[in-house]
Amino acid sequence: MFSYVSHLYCPKCQNTYSVDEPANLCSCGSPLLVAYDMDALKVHFRKESVIGRQPDLWRYHELLPVKKEANIVSFGEGMTPLLEMKKIEKELDIAQLWMKDEGLIPTGSFKARGSAVGVSKAKELGIEEIAMPTNGNAGAAWSLYASRASITSHVVMPVDAPIVTRKECAIAGADLHLVNGLISDAGKIVGRSVKKHGWFDVSTLKEPYRIEGKKTMGLEIAEQLQWKLPDVIAYPTGGGVGIIGIYKAIKELMELGWVREDKMPRLVAVQAEECAPIVKAYEENKTSSDFWPESRTAAFGINVPKAIGDFLVLEAVYETNGCAVAVSDETLLKEQQHIVRKEGTFICPEGAAVFAAVRKLRSEDWIKANETVVCLNTGMGIKYPETVDVNVPLLSPEDTL
Amino acid sequence: MFSYVSHLYCPKCQNTYSVDEPANLCSCGSPLLVAYDMDALKVHFRKESVIGRQPDLWRYHELLPVKKEANIVSFGEGMTPLLEMKKIEKELDIAQLWMKDEGLIPTGSFKARGSAVGVSKAKELGIEEIAMPTNGNAGAAWSLYASRASITSHVVMPVDAPIVTRKECAIAGADLHLVNGLISDAGKIVGRSVKKHGWFDVSTLKEPYRIEGKKTMGLEIAEQLQWKLPDVIAYPTGGGVGIIGIYKAIKELMELGWVREDKMPRLVAVQAEECAPIVKAYEENKTSSDFWPESRTAAFGINVPKAIGDFLVLEAVYETNGCAVAVSDETLLKEQQHIVRKEGTFICPEGAAVFAAVRKLRSEDWIKANETVVCLNTGMGIKYPETVDVNVPLLSPEDTL
Repeated sequence: MFSYVSHLYCPKCQNTYSVDEPANLCSCGSPLLVAYDMDALKVHFRKESVIGRQPDLWRYHELLPVKKEANIVSFGEGMTPLLEMKKIEKELDIAQLWMKDEGLIPTGSFKARGSAVGVSKAKELGIEEIAMPTNGNAGAAWSLYASRASITSHVVMPVDAPIVTRKECAIAGADLHLVNGLISDAGKIVGRSVKKHGWFDVSTLKEPYRIEGKKTMGLEIAEQLQWKLPDVIAYPTGGGVGIIGIYKAIKELMELGWVREDKMPRLVAVQAEECAPIVKAYEENKTSSDFWPESRTAAFGINVPKAIGDFLVLEAVYETNGCAVAVSDETLLKEQQHIVRKEGTFICPEGAAVFAAVRKLRSEDWIKANETVVCLNTGMGIKYPETVDVNVPLLSPEDTL
Repeated sequence: MFSYVSHLYCPKCQNTYSVDEPANLCSCGSPLLVAYDMDALKVHFRKESVIGRQPDLWRYHELLPVKKEANIVSFGEGMTPLLEMKKIEKELDIAQLWMKDEGLIPTGSFKARGSAVGVSKAKELGIEEIAMPTNGNAGAAWSLYASRASITSHVVMPVDAPIVTRKECAIAGADLHLVNGLISDAGKIVGRSVKKHGWFDVSTLKEPYRIEGKKTMGLEIAEQLQWKLPDVIAYPTGGGVGIIGIYKAIKELMELGWVREDKMPRLVAVQAEECAPIVKAYEENKTSSDFWPESRTAAFGINVPKAIGDFLVLEAVYETNGCAVAVSDETLLKEQQHIVRKEGTFICPEGAAVFAAVRKLRSEDWIKANETVVCLNTGMGIKYPETVDVNVPLLSPEDTL
């Protein structure tokens, strides 16, 4: 079998749904998660199965929700590099510091994973029109994958979202609209519009398959570390789908017996100081977050004042003995410059926030010197050229340096 | 042995040089090429050797010039996707149309390959400062790899080069200068400056290892097509290192016996109508090109009025029964829009030029219906956001689509 997907279930009320019909939220309002036939997988899917397969996320197709290979819509996404950051490792005095570089993926951001799986499943379900709000990168990714699948996409994006992502949506042929407001405002417009037109709503976590795409980051980290789990995985957290996906991936790997550890990596949710609803909830030991008023940060991708999956993010943090940390814009932009100069990796501001958080956690000895840490860089720095100032000399052809 | 590199040789006068000392051009003025111990390789390096290796260009390390693995400077570059373009295939009535997507590589352009190998070899040779002129992407790539290798880079770039690449050089910490002129003017500034300061000149083809990085595109295409060569490979040609590299790769594969065909793929050099020195030389059946005055094109990466390796590009075209084709800016920009809307792949203008050229060659039946064609897309479209106009509605939060 190409996929061992079984059904959808609600993590709140345990209600179940079919994977053969379009589904959004549970009737109780919670996001839905995807279940697999784990007993059959234990027999038919072994870690040796993936050796020699294409270096993309579809190498784990048995543990993904697309039933027919012909429905896969792909640009070759996945198996992004896991780079050892040797200079920063030494600087921070950590045994191993790895960066999972999600800049090296179609559309230049980790959003490609969710849209590859989400659009493929939408195609499998015969969906013809999708709609979503976006802070930029998700809209770009879903628009481009939708074009490949001949699906029409309707996208609403804050006017302040990165210009490059606006251009990606436009050239992909999406029905793009800007809004004078935040992603939460864009979400409300989409909510009203899908009701009016009958489009399929693919907003974060209102569509259950995006998590499955994101979870492949966790599968890949484990495979790339030879099925040995790291001590800590740190992730920039906006909507939180990445951290929810990585948590789900590791639980599935443990159930399948592909990893020997019985201890989960401690998951760290990193946010910006001026948009830190998950960090606030964590510090108050709560299981859900409050809307963060007047949020703003240079790390635009994590400017999410209230995530619909906040309770799942917090569960992932609590259950793994992880934590949630906020860093200031000044700190993360300084960290971005530092990382690029030292390691040559032009990471995005969200990725820089993660390194800044790890630096902080190491200084507090929450991360120990003998530990292995994986930082997620969720996109290419060049998608946000406005974060770099250039002031250089202009020469004439007859000049010499 | 990690590498079977043997020596450098001049394709014009057959002079040889050591690979253990820094080398630029031959004393006769020609670029140098890298030779390997092919007899030893035939015994010790088989196509089965690469199975299960990391999906990056270092999987071919025996056929690359870096002698010690510890000298490798890498961001995980290589093994970019080979995507079947099914809609365009049907539209053009071609048996198989593949796109090698060099957007999916560190720094977002194929220049990463040349700089990964070039900077690694520079590190191996103990070089501490490099200098180069660039149309943008090469400068960005070399600056970032140099930072990772703790090598200082001096870069001179036309003031009209894409802004994003300027920002990449700046954040990498390069000693960046802009020039009021073309890449040929930047080259003259670098020429004078390396003499004055004793820096190592890594200008296109003045440094012999860049070709070796680029040739891995040819190795990967063959491996990804299960060691069966395509009928045609089309490439956007500025400095021409890519096409020279692919030609070299295929000759080496034939010599090693990894491919069964005894016929080379026909190599197509694609240029822009307003900068087409190679096309002009080809049409006049010449073995070298003339400087193209007042060149300009929206495909900035191929705005090279005179390539130092022009005779090698023309050799590759003639020896493979290939051809050289020019397309107008209007045509290539229209093709870019068309490809993105149809296939969802946000290719760069240079890549779009290749698809436009293949469309033309197919209409003239130079490419036959039963043939397999590979188009090289040399970078991400988002590196040139200025090629996309966006004119979309601005909504208020209370609006509905």
